[in-house]
Amino acid sequence: MPQFLRNAWYCVAWLQELGEEPFGLQVLGEHVAVYRDSCGEWHALDGRCPHRFASLAQGRVIGDALMCPYHGLQFGPDGRCVLNPVDPEGQAPDVVIRHYPVRIRNGGVWIWMGDPALADEASLPPESAAFQPGYAAALLYFKVNANYQLVIDNLLDLTHAAFLHGETLAAAGDVPKHDFSMQGNVIHSDYRIEQGGVMPIAATLFDDDLCETLATMRWRPASNLDLDVRLHPLEGSNAQPLHMPSVHYLTPESENVTHYFAAIARNRKLDDPAEQKRMHDMALKAFTQEDEPMVNTCQSMMGTADLMAMKPVILKTDVAAVQARRVIAKLVKRELREEAA
Amino acid sequence: MPQFLRNAWYCVAWLQELGEEPFGLQVLGEHVAVYRDSCGEWHALDGRCPHRFASLAQGRVIGDALMCPYHGLQFGPDGRCVLNPVDPEGQAPDVVIRHYPVRIRNGGVWIWMGDPALADEASLPPESAAFQPGYAAALLYFKVNANYQLVIDNLLDLTHAAFLHGETLAAAGDVPKHDFSMQGNVIHSDYRIEQGGVMPIAATLFDDDLCETLATMRWRPASNLDLDVRLHPLEGSNAQPLHMPSVHYLTPESENVTHYFAAIARNRKLDDPAEQKRMHDMALKAFTQEDEPMVNTCQSMMGTADLMAMKPVILKTDVAAVQARRVIAKLVKRELREEAA
Amino acid sequence: MPQFLRNAWYCVAWLQELGEEPFGLQVLGEHVAVYRDSCGEWHALDGRCPHRFASLAQGRVIGDALMCPYHGLQFGPDGRCVLNPVDPEGQAPDVVIRHYPVRIRNGGVWIWMGDPALADEASLPPESAAFQPGYAAALLYFKVNANYQLVIDNLLDLTHAAFLHGETLAAAGDVPKHDFSMQGNVIHSDYRIEQGGVMPIAATLFDDDLCETLATMRWRPASNLDLDVRLHPLEGSNAQPLHMPSVHYLTPESENVTHYFAAIARNRKLDDPAEQKRMHDMALKAFTQEDEPMVNTCQSMMGTADLMAMKPVILKTDVAAVQARRVIAKLVKRELREEAA
Repeated sequence: MPQFLRNAWYCVAWLQELGEEPFGLQVLGEHVAVYRDSCGEWHALDGRCPHRFASLAQGRVIGDALMCPYHGLQFGPDGRCVLNPVDPEGQAPDVVIRHYPVRIRNGGVWIWMGDPALADEASLPPESAAFQPGYAAALLYFKVNANYQLVIDNLLDLTHAAFLHGETLAAAGDVPKHDFSMQGNVIHSDYRIEQGGVMPIAATLFDDDLCETLATMRWRPASNLDLDVRLHPLEGSNAQPLHMPSVHYLTPESENVTHYFAAIARNRKLDDPAEQKRMHDMALKAFTQEDEPMVNTCQSMMGTADLMAMKPVILKTDVAAVQARRVIAKLVKRELREEAA
Repeated sequence: MPQFLRNAWYCVAWLQELGEEPFGLQVLGEHVAVYRDSCGEWHALDGRCPHRFASLAQGRVIGDALMCPYHGLQFGPDGRCVLNPVDPEGQAPDVVIRHYPVRIRNGGVWIWMGDPALADEASLPPESAAFQPGYAAALLYFKVNANYQLVIDNLLDLTHAAFLHGETLAAAGDVPKHDFSMQGNVIHSDYRIEQGGVMPIAATLFDDDLCETLATMRWRPASNLDLDVRLHPLEGSNAQPLHMPSVHYLTPESENVTHYFAAIARNRKLDDPAEQKRMHDMALKAFTQEDEPMVNTCQSMMGTADLMAMKPVILKTDVAAVQARRVIAKLVKRELREEAA
Repeated sequence: MPQFLRNAWYCVAWLQELGEEPFGLQVLGEHVAVYRDSCGEWHALDGRCPHRFASLAQGRVIGDALMCPYHGLQFGPDGRCVLNPVDPEGQAPDVVIRHYPVRIRNGGVWIWMGDPALADEASLPPESAAFQPGYAAALLYFKVNANYQLVIDNLLDLTHAAFLHGETLAAAGDVPKHDFSMQGNVIHSDYRIEQGGVMPIAATLFDDDLCETLATMRWRPASNLDLDVRLHPLEGSNAQPLHMPSVHYLTPESENVTHYFAAIARNRKLDDPAEQKRMHDMALKAFTQEDEPMVNTCQSMMGTADLMAMKPVILKTDVAAVQARRVIAKLVKRELREEAA
């Protein structure tokens, strides 16, 4: 029984990777069609035409409406059918499909999966330094064959980096100190290596072999994470401090498939195409060759069972991941109670 | 719970595409092996040897029997096991498997899936002009990942052509007038464009840019359709009338997979290989790049639910498709009642 | 409801095909990780780390322990967690995972899937001539998409060879005499062709066109078979007798997937690489192009049903296969009764 938080914003695309055409995807198990109308306004509708369940994402934008590719029914931004071109009297059927509020934030397109009347701009993820002037970001997207909470677990416990990311994100052998706290429903999971090697992905950006590394992770429900990595020169070093902010937005497609939108930025060598490519490729490697196979394998080993139902061993370093699961469970429970009321 | 009409003929192959070997397929969820014996007679048996369930379609024809490829058991046209070659006393086991009546009609091999005693030649599809002298036909087969009723829906509502087949079967922008009637269980769904462009597939066969187009579709249960397309010259035109009869035979493999046998014929340029290839390729494009992906996507969007259970919006142009579904439901219900009696 | 015999040895690898790394597979539906420690001792553990269910088979050997690739937990040969490298106080969690006894026999690595206390060396398969001096063996492995009992059926009824293996294992047209007996739970299924052609796989090893062929098959529960093939010269022939012992070890991955480890040996032309390659390739062909597709097809035709639940026709030549199924059913029933006690 998948339980997702519905009254929340979910990222559905990196804006700069989109063309003119509508696009579709599944979010929380629902088919959604997203399009930009002829005035440039963003809209999102139920992805299925209510007539024969053709994919509206394969349709065409006509003015502010989206036309079904099969028999030409047109739907406006509020989901109302506005035209049936093959009706002898020119009448549209009296039907309204779901529409989803859409916002743009941090280079992403976001949709609100719950009641449109509750759409709450304040719960969009905060603006990230990754997208501010003075930073250059590499954008990534991949589909993970695992429940989104397994990806959150992965991100909230960075002690795995020493074992999994020795060639990309972690200096070999360094196990960080971990610090955990919560502010309301926001989880802080911070890591510090007082004196250690430079993570490979930063090697060309930091002019020394040793540094202090601080990594602060913030998780906000349902599934948005900010990771702030700072490399400080050790005393006596001439290196400049390096700042690498990144965001990690997880959008459940279904219970066991997750859309993962990541952006990793730096505040050095901004206009250097080779550096941009190097950073992109190394982040891609870290995700697709290290994290993703690991998370996919864990899911595959678990089958369709929920992690907690399998009574896993809980380590001290799991505190952030366990608390995030509790926050989600609490919010989903509240949402179901409010719906029932 | 898939409910198919069993006392009906289903097309299982285009005769001219067959070699000498037996062949097998699933029909209504049953494995069937079809073979031609050494006298040229056609037979169809349960596709599974009752010993170890090897595929009889992978066996060999010996006289009028079909030999299992695994341990050599032989079965006659009536399904009786006639030889066990490895039995020490040469005794065949006393076992009879299902056999299915077979007929040849309109270039196709047809089998009767119900009680052989009820096999009713009169319910074979009528002879089509497509296979008569004076016509040349292009034959097509494809497997659709959708319930056969979704394909019937597609064929009985040709208003979709204007939206889906602009490069193949429909002159752009022309929405036809629709006329519906029933004669017993036969559904007539007719379309007329009084003055419009020439459909691209007919462009090289009709010597004018404008015409009157008449398309008459006949559906007979369970799943056989005849489409008759005629292009008439407008007043003052020197063009010759064009006649393009086609047949569309749908054979459910299972609830969500359909064998689709189509033949599209013309009464012009009969002996022109380039024209034959052009017509074949354009029909192939219309089916595999336009209809099939559309129907597959609709099925995929619906999951395994029945269309009607999803309470679709019903348009006026759905009348033929809705009536066909009612006829099938009525006949299946009667069949189940008679079986129970 | 798959019922496997748990207190039994199952082959999990050919020793000579292994590298230094741990490896993993599913046996009886369980994930197992197998590794050789730094002293050369073999161990097998539950394949899933109890923390996040990462695959221990993807981990690293450290001394006599296996380290999880995700967060570095280490487990000893008895399954106890011995180290958590990221614990601030260096404490390992108090958890013990399953371990499986491991033995080496006939060139294979074997694990005991039941209670380790019951691991019984005497029930390992007997030493086979195939691995003795004076013989050269070709090793094969393949994964069959079928229940392991269908593969046992195949091996215990060699009358299929005349129909399926005419180009590899059987001289065309020869149907052997069959002899069956049991000694306790061991099944003997013997075949004799008094005068017939030489099986193609032996053609380059036997210096005549005709011979007497004796094939004796021994099955031991749960799923280990020895096949001994001997070609004797007919009276007046100058050919030397040929001995081809082979073993066939079946390890259920799950109800409908089977690991099949085979070795086929000969007592002639031992040091001839071309002959070794020819024998390997012909055995590979017999399995992957003849037996395996046949068994896969039978399983696919049966769906997930148990063979006996489908009330198959039973032939006289099925006696060995039927008895093997009865022995397995009896032993599984006893095992379940003992577990419940």
